[in-house]
Amino acid sequence: MNMYDIILKKRQGQTLDREEIDYFVTGFTQGDIPDYQASAFMMALFFQKMNKEETVYLTEAMMNSGDILDLSEIKGIKVDKHSTGGVGDTTTLVLGPMVAAAGAPVAKMSGRGLGHTGGTIDKLESFPGFSVEMTKEEFIQHVNDIQLAVSAQTGDLAPADKKLYALRDVTATVDNMSLIAGSIMSKKLAAGADAIVLDVKTGSGAFMKELDDSFALAKTMVDIGNGMGRDTIAVISNMDQPLGRAVGNSLEVKEAIETLQGKGPEDLYELCLSLGTQMLILAKIAQDEGEARERLQEVIHNGLALKKFKEFITRQGGNSQLVDNPQLLPTAKNIIELKATQNGYVQHIEADEVGMSALELGAGRQTKESILDLSVGIELIKKVGDEIQIGETIAKIHSNEEKKAQKAMERLLKAYIFSQEKIAPPRLIYGIVTKDGVQRT
Amino acid sequence: MNMYDIILKKRQGQTLDREEIDYFVTGFTQGDIPDYQASAFMMALFFQKMNKEETVYLTEAMMNSGDILDLSEIKGIKVDKHSTGGVGDTTTLVLGPMVAAAGAPVAKMSGRGLGHTGGTIDKLESFPGFSVEMTKEEFIQHVNDIQLAVSAQTGDLAPADKKLYALRDVTATVDNMSLIAGSIMSKKLAAGADAIVLDVKTGSGAFMKELDDSFALAKTMVDIGNGMGRDTIAVISNMDQPLGRAVGNSLEVKEAIETLQGKGPEDLYELCLSLGTQMLILAKIAQDEGEARERLQEVIHNGLALKKFKEFITRQGGNSQLVDNPQLLPTAKNIIELKATQNGYVQHIEADEVGMSALELGAGRQTKESILDLSVGIELIKKVGDEIQIGETIAKIHSNEEKKAQKAMERLLKAYIFSQEKIAPPRLIYGIVTKDGVQRT
Repeated sequence: MNMYDIILKKRQGQTLDREEIDYFVTGFTQGDIPDYQASAFMMALFFQKMNKEETVYLTEAMMNSGDILDLSEIKGIKVDKHSTGGVGDTTTLVLGPMVAAAGAPVAKMSGRGLGHTGGTIDKLESFPGFSVEMTKEEFIQHVNDIQLAVSAQTGDLAPADKKLYALRDVTATVDNMSLIAGSIMSKKLAAGADAIVLDVKTGSGAFMKELDDSFALAKTMVDIGNGMGRDTIAVISNMDQPLGRAVGNSLEVKEAIETLQGKGPEDLYELCLSLGTQMLILAKIAQDEGEARERLQEVIHNGLALKKFKEFITRQGGNSQLVDNPQLLPTAKNIIELKATQNGYVQHIEADEVGMSALELGAGRQTKESILDLSVGIELIKKVGDEIQIGETIAKIHSNEEKKAQKAMERLLKAYIFSQEKIAPPRLIYGIVTKDGVQRT
Repeated sequence: MNMYDIILKKRQGQTLDREEIDYFVTGFTQGDIPDYQASAFMMALFFQKMNKEETVYLTEAMMNSGDILDLSEIKGIKVDKHSTGGVGDTTTLVLGPMVAAAGAPVAKMSGRGLGHTGGTIDKLESFPGFSVEMTKEEFIQHVNDIQLAVSAQTGDLAPADKKLYALRDVTATVDNMSLIAGSIMSKKLAAGADAIVLDVKTGSGAFMKELDDSFALAKTMVDIGNGMGRDTIAVISNMDQPLGRAVGNSLEVKEAIETLQGKGPEDLYELCLSLGTQMLILAKIAQDEGEARERLQEVIHNGLALKKFKEFITRQGGNSQLVDNPQLLPTAKNIIELKATQNGYVQHIEADEVGMSALELGAGRQTKESILDLSVGIELIKKVGDEIQIGETIAKIHSNEEKKAQKAMERLLKAYIFSQEKIAPPRLIYGIVTKDGVQRT
């Protein structure tokens, strides 16, 4: 077996077998297969695609390229949630406590990463003292004790994916369904999930702009997960405008607290219910969607979800009193309001521009070395479909530096598009993909 | 401008402009663009192709990547001939003296290379003392004095092509028309040709097995040449069976001498007439095909071509007495005859197998370090369409080592396919491609 023949075979549109895919992933990870052969192979893959089996083999090989976390000592079925990424996505902060309060173990491994805002870990560090550093044993103990823990990533998970992604990133071979799906799933599976709920974002603020592509990516990931014996379900959700109202670290924490109190933005709450429903079903805590949804609404209304959140913050060293006094969370010095200069309706909010606006303020990382400002961000007062009148506040910019605020304002102005006509609020959920097929809603 | 965008643009099927192609060729040659980007680009090119203009830009950039020979001091229009390669191709040895004798300057730059037999230089070294080492000034002087010189390649011609070919060779991106054509043409053009006649081989023994592909390659090269202001014409010739009867170095020299004496194999002579005709027209020595052909036949019949060959051998230090006494050329110890074991007709001779048979004997190079045995090779007594009777000699193996001879015999037996039915001799020329279009004959 040699790499040349494998490249040629794929170039000619033939199907690779498990041994050939293993040969590539192993050889590439170990440095025996040079980058120039790997990149030619990635480009051939881009054009000739991989079928379902090949994609499973690829994912499995990438998963096996490094450590595989054994979380079997955690009681219950561990359902992980993964979002393909968007703007203002506060879901994890709300969903974790909700699902844990409803009885399913939530063992979340998270990162910091680059983006418009920080990652889940960064956001949680709005609570002074909060720490994600723990041993694997402590992680397991936390989950077994209170059903919920968030840990920094430990071990060397899927190094093949890391190396391959870096190469794809500079050779214009990122956007292939099998490679994207394999990249996400290999890491999730190596992180020890028994079952996975995927939140596949679609729209202008998502990686996948087109609905059909989003469904295709969802289907590919669901096929991989189930092909590897893990129950996997995907929900396709709207990312044409940012989710919720807050885009920023402590702003999103505040929004999460409000949502756990039952007074958060409708779209964020609804998405958490949709994703949580699937998680409870996969965790075999609920029999069907009706039961699962009811249970989740219950833990919001009776305050158990909020209580779980505080318990979780305390357990990981954070000051949970701030949950009841969110004004004590990191707060920006200045709030600048963007006012309407016309009457009408919000037609569109370009999610990417809002994200870039938050990034300008210092809410996210442009390079690995960037230092986050947890207090800054954007608050969207008016969202798509809302009526506006001259002088009304459309959005607020929370900032600490005037120069940055100005740049953010410029971006934000570009993000909003208005209309004279009445605009219907956009739909949130486009459908669900299970091993049994695709249901568009 | 950056390489990522160029890869992406081509991947998306867009047309690249001259600056982008220059950027790639220059950056890659200088090592600024890494191999992994170049190989991804080559694979994208394989799928999305290059149009006529892009192919010209690529060729021009590769030509300009190194030295460009200035042969303008040679009097007359220098027409170069290039063959895409086959088995038993003795054409250059015959064509050079013919065309030179007919009045056109032949300034041939040649290599050794890998193959079933040696290159033109190796073959000519069958003449003791013959040398291809000369300065550029000597090379020009030789051509101006006697119209014919063969020199080893001097200078660093088209280094971009050399580097790119090495990468394509290990990433399964060799067989793309634009890349193949650009590779050939960039070297020819850098070598100072005013006009070019291409012998594009087609059939089982050629690089291009399919006739349509051969015409497409021919058209691409003709477009490049004319696109860069050099008269270029391609002849499409048959390489389903080896050309002529001899496959081996000194065996081919003997065959060339016989052909120059007017008693060589019909197919070799005819191909030399066809290619020579085009060369004389491009060199503006003859007005039309009729006149050119007549002139070439004349120099064979009146002995001027043979005389030119001797003059050429002498001028480059070789012992030209061997032209009149070819039995003194390197000769193998043993001749083993392959005999017919049935009556019938030769239906097919797999050219590649005959070539491999000669290679087994030591006639060619498997690696750059291989040492050639100039004396060994194959003589095909019966060719496609010939009638055979039990016991008749079909082919002869000229060898110096029994073990190698046996291996060669095994290969040769596989090469011949017989039939009970009468077989028509195959056609030699399939057509000609000029800037005015394709004429299939």
